[in-house]
Amino acid sequence: MAQRRKRLLSVESILDAALACVDDSGRLTMADLAARLGASASSIYHHLPGRAAIIEALRERLGDEIGPPPMDGSDWDAQIRQWMRSYRQAMAEHPNLIPLLTEQTMTAGTVLRGYEQIVTLLTQVGAPAADIALWISVLDSYALGSALDLAAPDEVWHADPDTLPALAEAISMAPRGRPRADKAFELGLNALLAGMRDQLGGSSAASVS
Amino acid sequence: MAQRRKRLLSVESILDAALACVDDSGRLTMADLAARLGASASSIYHHLPGRAAIIEALRERLGDEIGPPPMDGSDWDAQIRQWMRSYRQAMAEHPNLIPLLTEQTMTAGTVLRGYEQIVTLLTQVGAPAADIALWISVLDSYALGSALDLAAPDEVWHADPDTLPALAEAISMAPRGRPRADKAFELGLNALLAGMRDQLGGSSAASVS
Repeated sequence: MAQRRKRLLSVESILDAALACVDDSGRLTMADLAARLGASASSIYHHLPGRAAIIEALRERLGDEIGPPPMDGSDWDAQIRQWMRSYRQAMAEHPNLIPLLTEQTMTAGTVLRGYEQIVTLLTQVGAPAADIALWISVLDSYALGSALDLAAPDEVWHADPDTLPALAEAISMAPRGRPRADKAFELGLNALLAGMRDQLGGSSAASVS
Repeated sequence: MAQRRKRLLSVESILDAALACVDDSGRLTMADLAARLGASASSIYHHLPGRAAIIEALRERLGDEIGPPPMDGSDWDAQIRQWMRSYRQAMAEHPNLIPLLTEQTMTAGTVLRGYEQIVTLLTQVGAPAADIALWISVLDSYALGSALDLAAPDEVWHADPDTLPALAEAISMAPRGRPRADKAFELGLNALLAGMRDQLGGSSAASVS
């Protein structure tokens, strides 16, 4: 039986189980993970050196899904837009994972290579060198917040029209569910990228490769 | 002993314990909460009707801390800016609570009254009625993502200069720790509000009360 379990355990099966733990409960403990796998913590450590490494491997897996900006010679903001859409979509499927990812240093290669390309784009478009990592934080913040918003219920707010007439009216005028989240994301992304373009000196027309 | 526990249990002590559960473990279960309080689940239900009600009460508590926009006659974007700063700061102290809040419908009165005032501001500044709830989602997304970024470790990214030279350089040029998070938040908020102002017809100078 121990032999059989050892054969079945792999990095992929551990990551599947870790993601299921996080999706189900909002947390990742080695004890929960071992229980879910029917394995000992030490047999998990044989494949991955601990909780932080598991979370980084999950980040890597999401990074593979998101992919880097296309670097196809289109406008920098079109490239960032495409990367942001993939990023938000991938994270929205695992909202409970988001705080686990943001609370530890990023070391996952695929994800960092995507950022390397964002840095290249922002450098080519003339962003001040001291601001580039800050812009990456801004894009990350908007993508992660929007992912949480996409994972929200169809009814985001429950407002009584008698006590909150303006809010109740605004809610009734907006779409619901995924169309609401998608329209809000694009509206905000347009505003953010337009504001960013202004701050970078109106260089939106510069085509970068 | 049961009598003593019953006397000690109150809405406030339950909420303190619930927030501690979420801060420590990333999750909130009635079993964990009862264990932390040394009380039975049924004695908790006597004060609050369940997990969703506890999460809404925690939202209400944070809403009291955040407060509404000042509605002091200053520019709409100055008012939104002040509200966004309080919002991000309050949420950054409890990053694990963020997905729990976004996964259920908002019913907390204090928080909804803050939104009511944001709707009033955006209406006065000429935002199309069908977009107002969308703009609220945009502001929420940026505030929550930025709160997670503020809760991030001092070293957000670990980039090897040999394989990721552009990213390593960008990281080395930016401040670290809280100054990084604060500068990024303000940079992005400026861009977002500037882009929003453009989309609302350049009405930044309109003073609203």
